Amino acid sequence: MNGKQVWVTEEPLSPGEIISRVTRRDAGAINTFIGTVREFTKGKKTLYLHYEAYPAMAEKKLQQIADEIEKQWPGTTTVMAHRTGRLDITDIAVVIAVSTPHRDASYAASRYAIERIKEIVPIWKKEHWEDGEEWIGNQKETKPGVPTKEESR
Amino acid sequence: MNGKQVWVTEEPLSPGEIISRVTRRDAGAINTFIGTVREFTKGKKTLYLHYEAYPAMAEKKLQQIADEIEKQWPGTTTVMAHRTGRLDITDIAVVIAVSTPHRDASYAASRYAIERIKEIVPIWKKEHWEDGEEWIGNQKETKPGVPTKEESR
Repeated sequence: MNGKQVWVTEEPLSPGEIISRVTRRDAGAINTFIGTVREFTKGKKTLYLHYEAYPAMAEKKLQQIADEIEKQWPGTTTVMAHRTGRLDITDIAVVIAVSTPHRDASYAASRYAIERIKEIVPIWKKEHWEDGEEWIGNQKETKPGVPTKEESR
Repeated sequence: MNGKQVWVTEEPLSPGEIISRVTRRDAGAINTFIGTVREFTKGKKTLYLHYEAYPAMAEKKLQQIADEIEKQWPGTTTVMAHRTGRLDITDIAVVIAVSTPHRDASYAASRYAIERIKEIVPIWKKEHWEDGEEWIGNQKETKPGVPTKEESR
């Protein structure tokens, strides 16, 4: 346990460990969102993915999102981790865990977190398809000129 | 790993193990909701809780909810577990995990599950306060005559 609130790592992510970090006496609700590598996208087969990040900037943006959540839902504890490097099918790319006194805020803050990650965190995804490969911008603001991917990760 | 989709148990619940059960090649999103025992409710201090269930009926109702989710969001995998017996502050009372191809459905199905659990699953909660104790109906339909608790767990 490194005590960090947000981080980017090449190591596998452990949802159980991340959930334990947000568990606390004054929370009754924990919501987590986990993004995993899906095999098929619109009938196209993914073999594996490669995520690349500028870690210092990615962690700065993740921290910004945690701060935004604290401002919007005071009393929320947020932990977020994103993996980089090669990820195989079913591997976990991102884990968000939030704890709140009551459940409404846990769902709202968790959803806010994943939408903001996709908007502002500089992490790029290279899809290795059965028939080729393609870099996919994972966010909206940081890659002007690349069309926004509407589809959920 | 017992292979069950829903269950009621006196044993501690492991979110990581439950999440691993819904992880699959055709899902890109996993949402989990975890209800934990909170220390303070409106300034009143809880020492511990005691949950009681009629397990066969509780599991039947949990399975009904999983079936409702499959009907409403086809292609969703749902696992739900509820703990009974004495639970201390920060202990996990309930874990819901759902996996879906895309994230919209994961949030919707997870939220649906916890609301339905509170509506129809016959599990009762005894609050042991600093200054007394109180049985609290945990659902709406199965205890007519007991006012609905609007407050989230």
